[in-house]
Amino acid sequence: MPADRTKEASSFSLPDEFTFIRRHFLSLAGPGALGLTDDAAVFAPQPGREFVVAADAMVEGVHFLPDDPAGTIGRKLLRSNLSDLAAMDARPFGWLLTLACPKNDGRHDEAWFAAFANGLAKDQREFGVSLLGGDTTSTRGPLVLSLTILGDVAPGTALRRNGACDGDGLWVTGTIGDGALGLKALLGEIPDPTGWLTDRYRLPRPRVGLELAGIAHAAMDVSDGLAQDAGHLARESGLGVRLDADAVPLSDAARAVVGTDPARLALCLSGGDDYELLLAVPDDATERLQARCARGGVPVTRIGRFDASLSGVSVCRADGSPFPMDRLGWSHI
Amino acid sequence: MPADRTKEASSFSLPDEFTFIRRHFLSLAGPGALGLTDDAAVFAPQPGREFVVAADAMVEGVHFLPDDPAGTIGRKLLRSNLSDLAAMDARPFGWLLTLACPKNDGRHDEAWFAAFANGLAKDQREFGVSLLGGDTTSTRGPLVLSLTILGDVAPGTALRRNGACDGDGLWVTGTIGDGALGLKALLGEIPDPTGWLTDRYRLPRPRVGLELAGIAHAAMDVSDGLAQDAGHLARESGLGVRLDADAVPLSDAARAVVGTDPARLALCLSGGDDYELLLAVPDDATERLQARCARGGVPVTRIGRFDASLSGVSVCRADGSPFPMDRLGWSHI
Repeated sequence: MPADRTKEASSFSLPDEFTFIRRHFLSLAGPGALGLTDDAAVFAPQPGREFVVAADAMVEGVHFLPDDPAGTIGRKLLRSNLSDLAAMDARPFGWLLTLACPKNDGRHDEAWFAAFANGLAKDQREFGVSLLGGDTTSTRGPLVLSLTILGDVAPGTALRRNGACDGDGLWVTGTIGDGALGLKALLGEIPDPTGWLTDRYRLPRPRVGLELAGIAHAAMDVSDGLAQDAGHLARESGLGVRLDADAVPLSDAARAVVGTDPARLALCLSGGDDYELLLAVPDDATERLQARCARGGVPVTRIGRFDASLSGVSVCRADGSPFPMDRLGWSHI
Repeated sequence: MPADRTKEASSFSLPDEFTFIRRHFLSLAGPGALGLTDDAAVFAPQPGREFVVAADAMVEGVHFLPDDPAGTIGRKLLRSNLSDLAAMDARPFGWLLTLACPKNDGRHDEAWFAAFANGLAKDQREFGVSLLGGDTTSTRGPLVLSLTILGDVAPGTALRRNGACDGDGLWVTGTIGDGALGLKALLGEIPDPTGWLTDRYRLPRPRVGLELAGIAHAAMDVSDGLAQDAGHLARESGLGVRLDADAVPLSDAARAVVGTDPARLALCLSGGDDYELLLAVPDDATERLQARCARGGVPVTRIGRFDASLSGVSVCRADGSPFPMDRLGWSHI
């Protein structure tokens, strides 16, 4: 038999997949990740806490654009997952990532993955989380990322969607519509002179750490359209909700684009990609809500009210007239 | 404004994505999943246990065939993740799934997803796990599934890859090569009169529940090729390993196909998709290993030995001569 075959069978070097993981992801790994060498991560739960876990996927061309910077793509997914934990009032600590990556497409090369991982490293520092594990594989389709986030919460305090009460105010953090307008700006359909909208599309700001248990009756994060998501909160709580379109907080950049165009305002209310928190808060907790958000440096605005006499979501203008919307939000299938 | 728009804005029905999840996945959800209505799952960890978590992805055309039955595709991914937990000697309890699914491709329809979920329901009963959450989205590429598995283990007892000692026996559960030969059978390259090989490719048997802590010094699951994976165990333990190709256990179906053809035996040793456990066991624990595996109804075979005087993996025949292999296993990128 050829000498080189004998040599190959008796020697051993790491296959590409392992050196790839070491090069780009090992520096992100936390203690429980066991150096990313084993079949699973192992860690001790914080005593006296409950576990919170969520998973989200993102597909190139659906949730991000093919020419979005590599350094923001992973962070967008991580942040959308962090936003899910923020909605439960949970504290994130770790995450796992699976990647199905196009092979030899000339774009997802070493430099791309270095930038991808560097972006994630920045967010790990900002949000105090670390990588626990994952998987890398190839696909003949577009890049698909899937991320699972783990966190914990004091027992019994996780915020749910089903706790809103008749008469609770409907509140939202931050500003709405920037993500949807940012996508339009990236597609060249609207101007974005400051880059604010584009940045918000690529890098949402998950509202972790506000500690709203005992203040909000219910919460969720706004990812698929404000109006639709408000409807989810109401439905899960067995209520209807009135949403005041004119009260919805817009950034200066969004306000400049929306002007008085109801179609553009409707886009903000249905466009998704906001990753703000939508909250049901009784009036007697308003001051505590505002104080908690002020402490976190996060604006919060009342944009409607839950109402047991309504069914579904009723979107109105300030004068009470109905606000027309072609659709309330997104469905991803 | 048109009356129908007003109606649409003030009414609310579930978007497709939510009714889809309810139809197919709600019956799989466990108590912590909160009915799959919230942003995350919440559950109390079992007191006095450590957490174990792993994630794997599978891509149509890479890890399974487009015409594999819908009822086995999800189960294969779940089982490959269960195998990761088995390798750590952990007890699985929950899982999350993200799906990036081709839209309107005429294949992934209601009947497909009903069969997909029914298969998973069978495995939930068999392995005692429940769905905690996930995400569904669309893609213009092939179906991509990503699954995260959660389990627990007695503190400090998780089996690692790095614990093998000089002189430990190299053991493997079950039979090797069935998965790789099963793929060849499905591609029409070899016969599979009983369907055994095909079945093993589509439905691996994760070796959960063997309770090998205190018996094995090190463990991993065989997913990317026996020879390569044996090399991983050795390298992580700072050792080399001798692998006796003729001792590797083959099923009757595999033996019928392999015959005396060294190329086919080499395929078994490098083909992957085995999801058996590869173990480093000191000789004085041999009887306990065999008893534990017999209790679980799982065959176990010594196929080599760790050796500090070697580097990497040395694959030999029974007479000690080198066994030629073009490659030791798979890299997925």
